[in-house]
Amino acid sequence: MVSRPVNKGTPKAMKLYISDRAPNPRRVQFFLAEKGIEVPTHKVDLAQKEHLKDEFLRLNPRRKVPVLVLDDGTIIAESIAICRYFEALHPQPNLFGAAPKDIALVEMWLRQVELELWLPIQFAFRHLHPALAEREIPQVAQWGEANKPKVLDFLGYLNKRLADSAYIALDRFTIVDLVAVVAIDFMRAARIALPEDLTHIARWRAEVSARPAAKAGA
Amino acid sequence: MVSRPVNKGTPKAMKLYISDRAPNPRRVQFFLAEKGIEVPTHKVDLAQKEHLKDEFLRLNPRRKVPVLVLDDGTIIAESIAICRYFEALHPQPNLFGAAPKDIALVEMWLRQVELELWLPIQFAFRHLHPALAEREIPQVAQWGEANKPKVLDFLGYLNKRLADSAYIALDRFTIVDLVAVVAIDFMRAARIALPEDLTHIARWRAEVSARPAAKAGA
Repeated sequence: MVSRPVNKGTPKAMKLYISDRAPNPRRVQFFLAEKGIEVPTHKVDLAQKEHLKDEFLRLNPRRKVPVLVLDDGTIIAESIAICRYFEALHPQPNLFGAAPKDIALVEMWLRQVELELWLPIQFAFRHLHPALAEREIPQVAQWGEANKPKVLDFLGYLNKRLADSAYIALDRFTIVDLVAVVAIDFMRAARIALPEDLTHIARWRAEVSARPAAKAGA
Repeated sequence: MVSRPVNKGTPKAMKLYISDRAPNPRRVQFFLAEKGIEVPTHKVDLAQKEHLKDEFLRLNPRRKVPVLVLDDGTIIAESIAICRYFEALHPQPNLFGAAPKDIALVEMWLRQVELELWLPIQFAFRHLHPALAEREIPQVAQWGEANKPKVLDFLGYLNKRLADSAYIALDRFTIVDLVAVVAIDFMRAARIALPEDLTHIARWRAEVSARPAAKAGA
């Protein structure tokens, strides 16, 4: 990303705080690349605990990236909130649905992917990975393990959906496909293998991953 | 709720599947009451495991209420997805924000309230309450306990916010206030006491709870 906005209406003082190889910032970067929007970024060094220092805590007391600072100083945390901001400013290409029924289907699938796939992957990672022992207190290994079958159960459900539909929520690419691919890519860090017999997921994942925007933040 | 739609555009074949005293259906009932929308309902008896029977699983294989069936047979699961459907059909009174910045702030707070307050309350309930031993397998008591300080930490943050703002996300009532009150009301089931020194939460909670719509589904 460069510091020159190309999509009109993006103010120059705006800044997006991200981190390298972090799944939540990657969602926003993938989304912005799909929209053709460029926003000045600042990289927060999580390894150096920059997200726990006063300067960052003033931006987001919840200690998380990404954070978007608007030109009037308003602070928007939460990846999907940042995406919705840009969807409202730049409605095309549409990624959250337009008609009421499509809006509802996108939100339904987005929540199911987040609550039943992404969160269990994150819990397996945070409660089992040795690198997280200092950050996730207490690490509860039994809870980490309990999430692995939840991930596999939802993937089986998703595979059936993708047998009947080119994309997850609608018959075209939406925010849901983006969030689901970012989650599945993160399974490697969580040390959960994607079962090879989920052929419809494999087909869809290859297609979504081949989109030029998928490289942003990856 | 009665079976006669009063807000034009609500088709007669529509049906909303809810359950008594369940927090996620209550969100939708509270929301619809705020909008003045009436939708025919069917009560799913969770105690009789009606949500695990074939008839319900055909509606929602994820085994959860609420579910909205549209007149064309489309099925919308997930409480917030159902709310967004009605917000798109009947934009007034607005409950999700209208301008891009307000949309983003509502989504930011909605996600923080769901991820950092509602989910920890739910985990404490599901992993510690004896009544859930057959439904949450495995119950991980250590994980249930680990969520109690997360709830209290977020409540402290929310109390500071409500010292400066009449409502959580905007200067008026939104979906976030509704979801947060439903979550806080559920703390009793999760056996977490609301600290008495959170006076700004107490003030805001009394105001939101006094809205006539707050009785719907409670």
